[in-house]
Amino acid sequence: MFYLTRRETFNGAHRLSNPNWSEEKNVEVFGKCANRNWHGHNFELFVTVKGEPDTDTGFIINVHELSRIMKQEVTEKLDHKNFNLDVPELKDKMPSIENIVKVIWQWLEPHLPGCRLHCIKLVETENIYVEYYGE
Amino acid sequence: MFYLTRRETFNGAHRLSNPNWSEEKNVEVFGKCANRNWHGHNFELFVTVKGEPDTDTGFIINVHELSRIMKQEVTEKLDHKNFNLDVPELKDKMPSIENIVKVIWQWLEPHLPGCRLHCIKLVETENIYVEYYGE
Amino acid sequence: MFYLTRRETFNGAHRLSNPNWSEEKNVEVFGKCANRNWHGHNFELFVTVKGEPDTDTGFIINVHELSRIMKQEVTEKLDHKNFNLDVPELKDKMPSIENIVKVIWQWLEPHLPGCRLHCIKLVETENIYVEYYGE
Amino acid sequence: MFYLTRRETFNGAHRLSNPNWSEEKNVEVFGKCANRNWHGHNFELFVTVKGEPDTDTGFIINVHELSRIMKQEVTEKLDHKNFNLDVPELKDKMPSIENIVKVIWQWLEPHLPGCRLHCIKLVETENIYVEYYGE
Amino acid sequence: MFYLTRRETFNGAHRLSNPNWSEEKNVEVFGKCANRNWHGHNFELFVTVKGEPDTDTGFIINVHELSRIMKQEVTEKLDHKNFNLDVPELKDKMPSIENIVKVIWQWLEPHLPGCRLHCIKLVETENIYVEYYGE
Amino acid sequence: MFYLTRRETFNGAHRLSNPNWSEEKNVEVFGKCANRNWHGHNFELFVTVKGEPDTDTGFIINVHELSRIMKQEVTEKLDHKNFNLDVPELKDKMPSIENIVKVIWQWLEPHLPGCRLHCIKLVETENIYVEYYGE
Repeated sequence: MFYLTRRETFNGAHRLSNPNWSEEKNVEVFGKCANRNWHGHNFELFVTVKGEPDTDTGFIINVHELSRIMKQEVTEKLDHKNFNLDVPELKDKMPSIENIVKVIWQWLEPHLPGCRLHCIKLVETENIYVEYYGE
Repeated sequence: MFYLTRRETFNGAHRLSNPNWSEEKNVEVFGKCANRNWHGHNFELFVTVKGEPDTDTGFIINVHELSRIMKQEVTEKLDHKNFNLDVPELKDKMPSIENIVKVIWQWLEPHLPGCRLHCIKLVETENIYVEYYGE
Repeated sequence: MFYLTRRETFNGAHRLSNPNWSEEKNVEVFGKCANRNWHGHNFELFVTVKGEPDTDTGFIINVHELSRIMKQEVTEKLDHKNFNLDVPELKDKMPSIENIVKVIWQWLEPHLPGCRLHCIKLVETENIYVEYYGE
Repeated sequence: MFYLTRRETFNGAHRLSNPNWSEEKNVEVFGKCANRNWHGHNFELFVTVKGEPDTDTGFIINVHELSRIMKQEVTEKLDHKNFNLDVPELKDKMPSIENIVKVIWQWLEPHLPGCRLHCIKLVETENIYVEYYGE
Repeated sequence: MFYLTRRETFNGAHRLSNPNWSEEKNVEVFGKCANRNWHGHNFELFVTVKGEPDTDTGFIINVHELSRIMKQEVTEKLDHKNFNLDVPELKDKMPSIENIVKVIWQWLEPHLPGCRLHCIKLVETENIYVEYYGE
Repeated sequence: MFYLTRRETFNGAHRLSNPNWSEEKNVEVFGKCANRNWHGHNFELFVTVKGEPDTDTGFIINVHELSRIMKQEVTEKLDHKNFNLDVPELKDKMPSIENIVKVIWQWLEPHLPGCRLHCIKLVETENIYVEYYGE
């Protein structure tokens, strides 16, 4: 079994704020991330697939094809977007990176020909990232 | 003459949109950066000062003091903020990184004891940055 | 199961020298790392925790809380310290990064509310790091 | 169990082109990577070994010894080489990073004293890498 | 005056070998870089332009336009190419990064609307880069 | 005029403490950097030379020769050393990076054949660096 990882980047805006809580409680829990007028990040998305190399190509998956799928299924939906307002799959959820990686998994998993999705890693800042393996 | 550089990080949201233009023209010029619901970045700020080392300390400026000044004068005003809505000095300007570095220069320049401000460098993504030397 | 990683940095000094060996043998085994007058590194510490996101916050753990715990339990004990002289838990051990990650695990493991410690990764230089999963 | 990783770098040239296919099909599948006159990369090789720290040294393996083995068994065979023409073990294979990591595993696995090979990770660009765990 | 820098990446193959010298002298001077079967690198190109921000856009130059020009004038000519064989402007020259940056300057300088070219920086490995300011 | 930069790395230990001051004053000014038992860093040294490319080689200076000179004149004197105790040129000075770059300049400047030293840049952490141009 071989594991191939492709990185794509995007940026977006979000706000962490629970609508069932008072503004005071939101600021207490989320700090500056609750700021009403949004803030944003440059996100790095690492998608890892697993499989055996094809004899003709030496590839688990053609990395240009994987890049195309990641752009079509993920970054076109998130890049330069407001995750709270513009992304239907995140509307009823807190747009934490934990919840975003699960949505990305669901977007990508049905679209990977000839290999299996292994891990979604999303880097929010140089100090914070989340990984999800589908279960 | 020695040049000392200190890095601080912050993140924020902005939108590039000229209020005198139609939405079509804004999208034509600014692309995704004109998106109505904002987007954001992790910014890296590099401040370079110049001077001669003090004989007692070996320092142009104490780097912890420089860090404290950068936080007080710059990152507290920009971190987790919406540059179009929350920053008075940017309200009448396009919040391009060119215009942001000039504002940062004006904030910092009066507050540097015993050395001179040399350069403000602001990195917006791994592929884009602006430098400004005060004139 | 989701995995969240937080990075903190610290620096310190150490020396690799086995007190039961001659200086010649120490230099033969440890090379420059045995130098009598110490040397040091900028260390990067990556702590990975695992759990399910909380419904109210979308978080496995609040990353600011994780950062606070890492500072209190780890970096305050190691930052700008001499690992051979200043850290009681390392005094009877070689301060290799293998032994340091085990100590960090023991410091952190009892203090993580609502999630489980998964991995301690300690980066000594851009070319060397160690990972430990608790067993 | 502890995991120690050492990075070494090398660069080389290769071409992705299946000799059983027409030039048109090669360009269709491999794009620019099929260019007849070669192209190349700076590769980063991360080798991870696992084991228990030795009581006398605190090391799974002496990292300078691991570096020496990586240079002798791997980078001397690949650095500044043409993988299609100069590397016998790759001559009958597509020199994809999937196939290169498997060859590196076979080169290194018999030469690691006192610890076990855990993972070979090969980074081709900042956006692409492959990992292999030996089976 | 403001300075805006844009990064693009490409990779290619080259060989350093003076046709007027013996193979022995080439190996003595250029070492592994003289290898007959080529080697290659991931190059990072940083282009810095200078000017005043436009009042309507806040930009010295639209960074997407700068990216488009860099791709059209530079990376399409160098990406996945053999610099000795495929690039007419380098055929009579040693394809050192010193000589490549001068060619890149000549390609880009006539194509920058509303601003002036300030610096071409070309990074060959994490340890080596060249800068050129046009004179 | 072309500018070529080479990076080398080293690590060392130091302490910032003015012998003419009380311990209280040293801690007040230097904070943790005054700790009696030393601390250390991974340093990155960037040396920039300037000149015209040689017609036969395309080089300002052979980068392998520059690397050899940097190792012989600088990193052998600083790597895995205690800057306060082991480096005669730093013994009467505070081992701040400002003072270290000046010493490095004096070590390197007489040893660069066929080109001129332009800049010494010394990076102490990802957040702090100093540059010196010889005057």
